[in-house]
Amino acid sequence: MGRTVAQKLIADHLVDGRMEPGEEISLRIDQTLTQDATGTLVMQELEALGLDRARTEVSVQYVDHNLLQTDEKNAEDHAFLRSACRRYGIWYSKAGNGVSHPTHMQRFGVPGKSMVGSDSHTPASGALGMLAMGVGGLEAALAIAGEPVYVRMPEIWGVRLTGELPPWTSAKDVILEMLRRHSVKGGLNRIIEYHGPGVSTLSAMDRHVIANMGAELGATTTVFPSDAAVYEFLRTEGREDDYREIVADPDATYDVTDEIDLSTIEPLIARPSSPDNVVPVSEVEGTEVGQVVIGSSANPGLRDFAIAAYLVRGRQASDAVSFDVNPTSREILADLTKMGGTFDLISAGARIHQAGCMGCIGMGQAPAVGHNSLRTFPRNFPGRSGTREDSVWLCSPETAAASALTGVITDPRKLADKLGLDYPDLPLPARASVNTDMLLPPLPPEQARREKLVKGPNISALPDMPPLPDDAEAPVLLKVGDNISTDEISPAGARALPFRSNVPQLATFTFDQVDPTYPRRASDCADTGHFVVGGDNYGQGSSREHAAITPRYLGLKAVIAKSFARIHWQNLANFGILALEFTDPADYDRVEQGDVLSLHGLRERLTNHSDITIRNETKDEDYRLRHRLSPRQVEAVVAGGRIPMLARS
Amino acid sequence: MGRTVAQKLIADHLVDGRMEPGEEISLRIDQTLTQDATGTLVMQELEALGLDRARTEVSVQYVDHNLLQTDEKNAEDHAFLRSACRRYGIWYSKAGNGVSHPTHMQRFGVPGKSMVGSDSHTPASGALGMLAMGVGGLEAALAIAGEPVYVRMPEIWGVRLTGELPPWTSAKDVILEMLRRHSVKGGLNRIIEYHGPGVSTLSAMDRHVIANMGAELGATTTVFPSDAAVYEFLRTEGREDDYREIVADPDATYDVTDEIDLSTIEPLIARPSSPDNVVPVSEVEGTEVGQVVIGSSANPGLRDFAIAAYLVRGRQASDAVSFDVNPTSREILADLTKMGGTFDLISAGARIHQAGCMGCIGMGQAPAVGHNSLRTFPRNFPGRSGTREDSVWLCSPETAAASALTGVITDPRKLADKLGLDYPDLPLPARASVNTDMLLPPLPPEQARREKLVKGPNISALPDMPPLPDDAEAPVLLKVGDNISTDEISPAGARALPFRSNVPQLATFTFDQVDPTYPRRASDCADTGHFVVGGDNYGQGSSREHAAITPRYLGLKAVIAKSFARIHWQNLANFGILALEFTDPADYDRVEQGDVLSLHGLRERLTNHSDITIRNETKDEDYRLRHRLSPRQVEAVVAGGRIPMLARS
Repeated sequence: MGRTVAQKLIADHLVDGRMEPGEEISLRIDQTLTQDATGTLVMQELEALGLDRARTEVSVQYVDHNLLQTDEKNAEDHAFLRSACRRYGIWYSKAGNGVSHPTHMQRFGVPGKSMVGSDSHTPASGALGMLAMGVGGLEAALAIAGEPVYVRMPEIWGVRLTGELPPWTSAKDVILEMLRRHSVKGGLNRIIEYHGPGVSTLSAMDRHVIANMGAELGATTTVFPSDAAVYEFLRTEGREDDYREIVADPDATYDVTDEIDLSTIEPLIARPSSPDNVVPVSEVEGTEVGQVVIGSSANPGLRDFAIAAYLVRGRQASDAVSFDVNPTSREILADLTKMGGTFDLISAGARIHQAGCMGCIGMGQAPAVGHNSLRTFPRNFPGRSGTREDSVWLCSPETAAASALTGVITDPRKLADKLGLDYPDLPLPARASVNTDMLLPPLPPEQARREKLVKGPNISALPDMPPLPDDAEAPVLLKVGDNISTDEISPAGARALPFRSNVPQLATFTFDQVDPTYPRRASDCADTGHFVVGGDNYGQGSSREHAAITPRYLGLKAVIAKSFARIHWQNLANFGILALEFTDPADYDRVEQGDVLSLHGLRERLTNHSDITIRNETKDEDYRLRHRLSPRQVEAVVAGGRIPMLARS
Repeated sequence: MGRTVAQKLIADHLVDGRMEPGEEISLRIDQTLTQDATGTLVMQELEALGLDRARTEVSVQYVDHNLLQTDEKNAEDHAFLRSACRRYGIWYSKAGNGVSHPTHMQRFGVPGKSMVGSDSHTPASGALGMLAMGVGGLEAALAIAGEPVYVRMPEIWGVRLTGELPPWTSAKDVILEMLRRHSVKGGLNRIIEYHGPGVSTLSAMDRHVIANMGAELGATTTVFPSDAAVYEFLRTEGREDDYREIVADPDATYDVTDEIDLSTIEPLIARPSSPDNVVPVSEVEGTEVGQVVIGSSANPGLRDFAIAAYLVRGRQASDAVSFDVNPTSREILADLTKMGGTFDLISAGARIHQAGCMGCIGMGQAPAVGHNSLRTFPRNFPGRSGTREDSVWLCSPETAAASALTGVITDPRKLADKLGLDYPDLPLPARASVNTDMLLPPLPPEQARREKLVKGPNISALPDMPPLPDDAEAPVLLKVGDNISTDEISPAGARALPFRSNVPQLATFTFDQVDPTYPRRASDCADTGHFVVGGDNYGQGSSREHAAITPRYLGLKAVIAKSFARIHWQNLANFGILALEFTDPADYDRVEQGDVLSLHGLRERLTNHSDITIRNETKDEDYRLRHRLSPRQVEAVVAGGRIPMLARS
């Protein structure tokens, strides 16, 4: 039987398991990507594992998140990461070189390779026909150490594209259409595979936009075929030799299917504060805007900046708008500058920031309360911008630039009409300004072994992880609703990010957006520990394992939810926290914050059964729960997590 | 008798008083400059004064300090400032338009005009033959309201320049030579006036560098003649009609004199952590560097960036160096981009940041502890970088760029020799890319009167200011040494700056670098209040009146010091804190932290005498002190400060 691109990639890297949806499989990993907000823990984990040298084909550590350096902690993290890369044979991408996802695609992405990254937008490299997945830092560390990665075989979701995008719409509108249709839970336990005649109308960077934000659908990853557009991309980057065609077999079948006629796409926008609150721009036209930001890994391409520059050329951002531009990388900023686009943006009143994630991860650019902020970013979860009651919208560069000019949400088609502007054929360079001098290669092994890790005072050791107790009786310290993101569990942003390598300090920010009393209340019941109750899709969003480690540090024993997002679910198991699902979702409504729950004979039960009963001592009733842990994961949870398990073996 | 440029400017603006050094004079003010870190208080003061409309010829509010926006507070301050400018008839320079000093010089500076600015580097406009002085925010507010500004007539310090700078040295090396010779106290109560044949070899922007950092000598201001170089500058900016020649009379005499032969200048550098720790670069060559930053109002000119770009073109910053570039303004970044310099800097690995003060005011770019940071900035006071134990050096763009390439402190002359580079004649444009669209003009009066102030929740009211008590008995809560800067009294930086419009919150940072227990200990003795004892030049550096308001809020009654820096001394009087000097400096050594001091019959004594006796109850001894307050200032201090005094009248 014919295979889809995703199935081919999985089959090529399968170490163990059956390729049946729901079965646990393990995969050989060719490449890893880490960034600085999660990478410091990864490097500490490599140290704890006693690794001598990375065993992957390529591992790259990017510095793109913690760039503000409001005190010495960020710069010390950078120095630590650089020393760890020198020690372990890992590429080091200096601060200023660029955002991990597009930079990785430009310099290292190879069709047919597998990759894991300690960043939830790692699937962006699926644009090149790679199998690229976001994982927790510990799994990235294990992959660097040569271990396979374990996942449940996802369903393959074939999305057939036909037609061609109309003028003034772009790839961002395609992924917003997917979110409009399917919500932030639509991709859970699925790989999205785009196919059909419409695919060839999208460049590799357009596909990056769509694959990147597949993370917002909750998908395991997104893949595109490797075809002429991928060849063209690699040629522009001077890497045509890395090209290899990978397309679905003609008789391939998909587990789930959908279809988008690209010619019917119109400019779309996600309202605050979820990426799936999508409406046509025309529905919200005229809404006042205080800030417009262009950039991030969700619109990273030279084209995305060039189209904005084209639209604003010779014009001026509205008086009341802060027009912010975050270049993706040194390479893209260099090319944009060569093309004249940087000059056009500066002249139109743009604040050009350093290349990096910046406001996308809440590192600066926080809007004023009550002012709408339009961003080409992937996420608008509450408070992620750094502003407590923020009002962040997600849209294409076309919509963003048009709105920057007018000061109100604006359909770029109408503005272009008014200005008499045709949709341009942008003169992108045939060869990119490739410059690898900020990308430090691994040292030769003999030299690497002599390198010392440079640890500043803010780099703590990992906390102890005692084994799972056999019985637990503890209160529900927090009950939350659906789609709680890891941003809400452990925030990013300028206040918290500098503590990413300091667990005790970072823990004081846990659930800060949801209930800032949580850390204090958790300390008050440190003797018994506590439970958290969640709704559907608990732990969506960023891959940060800190969202497991910091609640665990504060005494979290188990999360009981209707369902879990994949990466966070794995992170919970990796760090010895039980992830349990209500067999009957209606039981969610019966539990209240403050109820005392008890679990008994845990170890035997987890090992031999997939279901378990929890007693609500306060309400005097029982609920049936299930765990979806593999025997491997049960062993880890019982041991207190994978680190104590590995330490023992 | 002939007059110097400074004397002509003073005579032209004299409202009252005699032009004898030490006499209090009052001056009519034509222009004001405020920036966002001090401007929010200025606007609150205008509101408290009940101002209808600015009475100056030109008042401009710049947004250049608080640009990181790590949460909603910065953006809310910007919205407040914009609304206040609309209300009061003040120009508003949007975030991203540029750093106040060079931008003001480019767009508004006019030879012969007087200006005060709530920023200590306001003297930079002295480069155009203006009388430009840094003052506290309240004095800026009063100037906007049409009130004269009071100062003690300074001595005029004539510095005769001869010769011409050698290749690979520049204006920064001239002001570093002044600091090497005269220290951070050398300019106290003086106006520095440069004259002589060497002046004509310096461009207006070169003169800006020297006038700007005259603040580091403690000078009241710096003036240059308005000559052909000023005409050329104004012509480049499209403002030749604003030119007017102002030169010293041939028979003018100076109160104090000095001379510098420019041809003897060599590359200089200020070691950590004072701008006057100056040594030749050749003495510290080879010292490892972790960061190099180019930018700030102390090296703001297009030339300063272009020379760096020339030196690094086709080369690469050292692996271990973070090479940061802070463009001064939108105009300069646009021109640099046109010239190709932006591309060269990007290609050499520079992190190009948004236009603004950035790391110069501790907004980001904090270096790691133990890593040397070379900066073209004006100040390197301890901790101003945002890093507690920082190691910041000050140098020219030539030295900075050379060191970025090698990774060690490098004499640019030697590197140029090695690379076979001649010192270039830079192709600066004959006409600047003038673009005033980010500079919002004052509204017409009828429209302005209808504008409402937009106050976010972080914008507090000014605290109450009760009158001076007649008797005080209180402990010395803190004893500090010489040259304590306002950075050490009330820090800038990313943690504190967002609270500049929130006095109670900001007060928790008071003396943070010196003794973080001070705010708590001050609260503990809130009933009695407290004293601070200081050495020489107490309160040097930034003009921030927060360094008076926050200690006052915490109960400070009087500072007893060997001597005071001018702006801070005025701020203390403005906010009702007694500034007293030891008649016998040796008494400084007799007082200890913790001693209880008492003052009696204060009001009568201050009003009728210039000296006063303080009793050390702990040591059972008396010290003679003097105040230098004018009758006008005594009245203000007795009333509890100028705001309660004005409120009563």
